[in-house]
Formats: sequence, C-alpha cells, structure tokens
Amino acid sequence: MRMVDLIQKKKLGLALSRAEIDFIVKGYTCGQIPDYQMSALLMAIYFQGMNQEETAALTLALVNSGERIDLSGIEGIKVDKHSTGGVGDKVSLIIIPLVASAGIPVAKMSGKGLGHTGGTIDKLEAIEGFRTNLSRAEFIHNVNTYKMAVAGQSADLTPADKMIYALRDVTATVDSVPLIAASVMSKKIASGADAIVLDVKAGSGAFMKSLDRARELARVMVELGKSLNKKTVAVITDMSQPLGHEVGNASEVREAAEFLQGRGARDLTAVALTLAAHMTVLGGAYNDLPTASRELTRLIDSGSAFQYFKKLVKIQGGDPEVLDNPGRLPRAKYHVAVEAPAGGYVTAINAEAVGMASMLLGAGRKRIDEPVDYSAGVTVVKKIGDRVKEGETICIMHTNLAEHQEAGAALQNAYTFSDIEPAPLTYVHEVIQ
Amino acid sequence: MRMVDLIQKKKLGLALSRAEIDFIVKGYTCGQIPDYQMSALLMAIYFQGMNQEETAALTLALVNSGERIDLSGIEGIKVDKHSTGGVGDKVSLIIIPLVASAGIPVAKMSGKGLGHTGGTIDKLEAIEGFRTNLSRAEFIHNVNTYKMAVAGQSADLTPADKMIYALRDVTATVDSVPLIAASVMSKKIASGADAIVLDVKAGSGAFMKSLDRARELARVMVELGKSLNKKTVAVITDMSQPLGHEVGNASEVREAAEFLQGRGARDLTAVALTLAAHMTVLGGAYNDLPTASRELTRLIDSGSAFQYFKKLVKIQGGDPEVLDNPGRLPRAKYHVAVEAPAGGYVTAINAEAVGMASMLLGAGRKRIDEPVDYSAGVTVVKKIGDRVKEGETICIMHTNLAEHQEAGAALQNAYTFSDIEPAPLTYVHEVIQ
Repeated sequence: MRMVDLIQKKKLGLALSRAEIDFIVKGYTCGQIPDYQMSALLMAIYFQGMNQEETAALTLALVNSGERIDLSGIEGIKVDKHSTGGVGDKVSLIIIPLVASAGIPVAKMSGKGLGHTGGTIDKLEAIEGFRTNLSRAEFIHNVNTYKMAVAGQSADLTPADKMIYALRDVTATVDSVPLIAASVMSKKIASGADAIVLDVKAGSGAFMKSLDRARELARVMVELGKSLNKKTVAVITDMSQPLGHEVGNASEVREAAEFLQGRGARDLTAVALTLAAHMTVLGGAYNDLPTASRELTRLIDSGSAFQYFKKLVKIQGGDPEVLDNPGRLPRAKYHVAVEAPAGGYVTAINAEAVGMASMLLGAGRKRIDEPVDYSAGVTVVKKIGDRVKEGETICIMHTNLAEHQEAGAALQNAYTFSDIEPAPLTYVHEVIQ
Repeated sequence: MRMVDLIQKKKLGLALSRAEIDFIVKGYTCGQIPDYQMSALLMAIYFQGMNQEETAALTLALVNSGERIDLSGIEGIKVDKHSTGGVGDKVSLIIIPLVASAGIPVAKMSGKGLGHTGGTIDKLEAIEGFRTNLSRAEFIHNVNTYKMAVAGQSADLTPADKMIYALRDVTATVDSVPLIAASVMSKKIASGADAIVLDVKAGSGAFMKSLDRARELARVMVELGKSLNKKTVAVITDMSQPLGHEVGNASEVREAAEFLQGRGARDLTAVALTLAAHMTVLGGAYNDLPTASRELTRLIDSGSAFQYFKKLVKIQGGDPEVLDNPGRLPRAKYHVAVEAPAGGYVTAINAEAVGMASMLLGAGRKRIDEPVDYSAGVTVVKKIGDRVKEGETICIMHTNLAEHQEAGAALQNAYTFSDIEPAPLTYVHEVIQ
C-alpha cells in the first residue's frame, strides 16, 4: 500500500477501506507517512468528504492509536457530554454536579482551553487548590463514591487525533464535517463513555456559523455514535451571543455556582437543563425528558445540586466555601465598564469577538503552554433583545492589564444596535437522535 | 501574510493575487513555508483550479526563483520546443538539425529522462563522446556559429519548480492543468526562448489520455505564453502508440538519423514535420506552413538536414561517422523477438506499457541518479493497423539482461488484436495558437 495511491483514490472521490484508513493513521502516527502526504489527503477529504463507514473507520483508528480508558469499574451507565465549543460555555461546570445529584455517574475528562473558548479544567483550577491531575484509581474511586470526578485528558488518549488536529490547524483543513466528527467521537469513545450527549453550537461564536452546518455535523456524529454502538444525542444550541453573562475562568465558576442556587440566566438555563435532561434520561435516572426537566429543577431548587458542586470542589482539593463566597475567587485589579457607542435594541453580539477580547484581557491562551489569568474576563451585561441608551454599560472588562483599550473597542464593535426590536431568540434549536 | 490563510482562500475558490503567489513561491523555496502547507495548497489548487492571471503569476514566480538565461547574444528569433512526454519521442533529435538547417537558431536545453519516457540528453549521450555539459559561453558560441547547441538543463533553472514538482509527485497533485502549464512554461521562459512550440501528446502513452484533456492543457499554455509575451503554438499529436519504431536511447538516435536521410516512419514524419514547420514559421524562415513543409522536406531530401545532425555530433565531441554507421552505436547482447499471442489487426498498443518494458530492459531510470543502458530498448515492429499472424514478431527486445521474460509478457499484453481493421489514425490532431 502506498500513501500516494490512497491520496489519489480519495482525490478521485472513491471511498477508502478500513484497512487503508488503518494504514494511514498507523503510518502517520509512527512517522512513516510524512506530514506533507497527510495534509494533501486531509485537503482531498475536505473536498470529497467521507462516507459513514470511512468516518467510523477513522474514528476507531484514532481511538486505537492510544489508550482506551476502562470505566467498567464504575457502576451504572457512564454518560459523557461534549460541546463543540462556545464563548461563556460553563455548562460542564453545571452539569457535573447536577447530573451526579440525580444519581448518574459523571466521569468527566476535559481539555484545557485554546484560542477564544475556555476549557473546563482552566475554569475549575481558578478555585485555589482544585486538582485535576487525578490518578486513574482516584478518578474511578471518586466516581464510584461521589458520582463525579473531573480530570485532565490523558496525553495517551487518541495521540493520532492530536497529531492530525495540529496539522489540520495549519493547513486550513479544520472545517471538514467527517474530520470534526471523527475527532470528537474518538475522544469520547477512548474516554470510556457508554452514551454521549453532544452540544453542537450554532452561531457567531461557534465553529458552525449556520444552523444547516451545525445540523449536518450533528447528524454525522449521531449516526457515527450509533454505528459504534454508543447511544448518542445531539442538541443544537444557540451561540449567536455568549452563553449566560460571564466569560472568564473565575467568573464562570461564580456564574455556575449561582445557577445551581437557582439564579441562572435564561439562555444558560435552557441549554444546561436540556443537556442535563438528555444525560439523565440516557443514564436511566428518568423515563422521559419532561420528568427529567422537572426533577432536575427540583434538585436545583432544593439546594442538592449546589451541595454536589461544593462536594466536587472539596474532594478534588479546593475549599468549598469559595462557592458560597465567590469574592474569594481570584479577582482582577481593573474592572472597566464598556459603554454603548449607540442606543437602541441589541440585535447581535459577535460572541467570537467577545471571546477574543477576553483572551486579550488575559483569560485565554494562544499556545497550549501559556498560563491564563483566572481573574480576567468580560461580564456581558447587555444581551440580545436588551434596550440600551448611548453611554450605558454594555460590558465590564476584568483584567490585570493596564492596557485594555483594544479589548474595549473590540467589545463595542462586537455589538450591533437597532431601533427595531429583534425577534426572541431560540436557545435550543433542535435535538437529533 | 500567513500561508494558512492563503490555503483557506484557495480552498474557498478565491483567486490568489500576484503578491500572494510570490510570497508562497519565495517562502517555499527558502524553507519558510513547510512541505505540509504547500501540499495542502497544491491539493486545493487541484480542486479549485487557477485562473489565467494566477497561472501567469505562478509561472513568473517559478522563473524568478532561479537563473533566467540570457540568449540575447544569439542573433535571430530563438524558438524552443517542448513535448509533454511520450514513448519513442525522438522528435527533438530530428528538429534540432532540421530547424537549424533552415537557418533558425536552436538553443536547446533538455532534461534527463525519468520513468517511462526518455530524455533527449540521454539519447544524445548514447553517441560516444557527445558532451552536453557545455559552458554558457560555448553554448551561445555554438548557436551563433552553427545555429545549434544542446545542453543539459542548468540546476539553477526554476529551482522552485523542481521542489514543487517533487512534492506534487508524492502527493497525487501532478495532474492539475494550471500546475502543469506553469511548470512547463516557466522552464521555457527561464531558458530564454522568444517563441515556443508545444507538442502536447494525447493517448495511452501520454500524460493526457484524452484529446479533451490535452486540448485543455494546450489552450491554457498557449494563453499563458501570450500573456507573457511569448508567441506560443501548441500542436496536439497522437500518442496512442509509440512514435516511430524505436524506443531506447541508441536506437532512437539511429531512427532519427534514418529520418533525416529520408526514411521516416509515417507517424514520426507527420509529427516532426508539423512541429518543425511551426518552429521555422515562428522563427521567420518561411511565411507560411505549406512553404515551410515543402522547404523542410527539401532540406531532408537534399541531405542538408542530415549534414547538420553530423555537424551537431561533431561540435559536441562525438564522431559524426557513427550516424552513417549506426552499427557503431552501443549494441545490446540480446535481441529477442516477441511473438504475437494472437492474429488479426493491431488495434491498440499501450504505449506506456511499451515504455515500462523498455525501462525494465535497462533503457530508463526510476531515480534521477541511476545510470541508463544506452543499448537497451524495444523495436516496435508492428503498429496500429498492421495485420499479423499468431506467432509473428511484433516487437524486438534489446537488452543486456539475461532475464527479460517479464518485459516480453508486458509487450505482448500491450497489444490488442481484432479481426476488424481499425480506422486510420490521425497523427496530428489539431493546432492551437
């Protein structure tokens, strides 16, 4: 088998066999296939696509490139959640304790944030003492004992995916639905999930800017999950503005804590409850979605879910009292109001621009080895549909950097105002299963 | 400017600017742009194409990556010829002396052969003592004094094209019309040609298997030549079987010598005279093609063209008497007849397979640093339209290898026989100018 012939085959629009895909992934991982052939193949895949069998074969080849985590020591159905990435997306912080409080084991492995979207690990590490480098035994013990644990992704998980992703990033081949689907699903399967709930974001702050593209990706991933015998549900949610009000590591922890105390923003409530409901139904806690929504709301109202959040912080080395007194979370030196440059209804907020501004203020990293400033971020005071006067505060920047004019201007530019009131937003577009 | 953005731009089907193409070619040549980005771009170009301006910009960028040969020291219009590559294609051996005998300067730079098509340099070096490593001064002196010279291509000529071609070869991105056109035309322009005659081959032994694809390539190259102020004519010629009767280095020299003594095969005569006629008209020797054909035939019949061939051998270090006595050219140890496996009319000969068989017998090289056996090759005794009996000789293999059964079987398989007489072949399909 020669790589050049396989590139040619895909270039002509023919399907690659499972053996050919294994050859490619193994050859690339061990260095026998050079980057320049892999990138040519990736570009051919961008143009010619991959059918369901090819995508499944690629997913399994990525899984088999590394360790496959055995969660069989954990009782119950392990349901994992994955978000395609958004701005202000603190849903994982919420659903870990919420779903655990419903009796479903949550064995969460998360990555660090890169670019304009934050990572769950960074957010939790904003809590002083919070450890995510759990041993495998400790991780499984915690899930069995407390129904939840959060750990950083093992470096041994899908190493081929990491290599291929790095190459896609510099060769303009990221936005291929089969490549995204295989990448996401391989990580979830290697992490040992029995069932998967996908939060596929659509809108300005999401990778998929249009609902159609988000739907296409969701369908491919759901089919892929089924073909690999993993129950999979995809929820397409709105990312036409940041989710909730906080963008930043410490501030998102605070917003998650407030949510679990019954004070959630409307969009965040709709998204987090829908995802948690699907997870608990898949996990067998409830028979149907209406029951799940009702019971999950009850778990929040009773304070039970918030107690689980505090317990999570405690068992992973943090001080749970921080969640009661979020003033004890890292605080930035400067808090600067951003004023509305015009008056009217807010009709659009470029969420990606808000994420970028937050990164400029110190909350994110451009390279995976850079530190982040837990205290930095943006409070999105005004959201789509709100009416503002010129000069009114639309955002607040939190930063330790004296220089923050560029971020302020970017935030002003991120907003669009109009005299005409926009139609109400749909927070959850559709569910594909 | 970032390469990843330019890949993205081309991927989306947008045209690259001249500045962007210069950035890419310069960056790649100096090592700032890695192979893996270049190959992704090449694949995007395969799918999205390049418009005339982009192709012209790429051609000039390739030219500017290296030395541009100054032929202004040679009087007259310098007309160069390029063939897209065929099997048994000894036309350059013929047209160099023939066109020179018509008074048009021929400053020919040629490459070595690779794969199943031979190189003019290898063929001429089959003549003992023939030197192709002329200094620039000697080259120009010879053209001014004798109207002709042949030299190997300078390593400094279009180095970017060499790098990009090597990458295309291993990433299945060779068969892109704009990339082929830019590669061919950049070499001709860097070689200092004033006008260019292109022999675009179509058929089983050619890169372009169909007339439509050959026509597309021819049109793009002719337009490209015009846009770069070089008079360019493309002649689409038949490569559905080997050209003439000989495939191999020494034997092609012999066939060229016989041609110039008035004993040319029909297909070779049609192709070589058409190309030479266009060259002499572009060079200003004759006013029109009918006159050119008549006068060139007269130069062959009078023996003048053959005397020029002998002179060429002499001035470049060989013994011209070899052309009178081709038995003195390198001769192989074995001469093995290949018998017709069936009877009937020859309706097709897979020219590429004949080229491959010749390579197996020692006449070609797989890697540019391998030696070739000048004496090895194949005499194609029977051609399309000939009627043969089962067991009759269709080819003769010339080789120094005792093991030649594989080549013999390949040659038998290269032939197709039928009871129905095929329609006469068209040797010159069309002229695009």
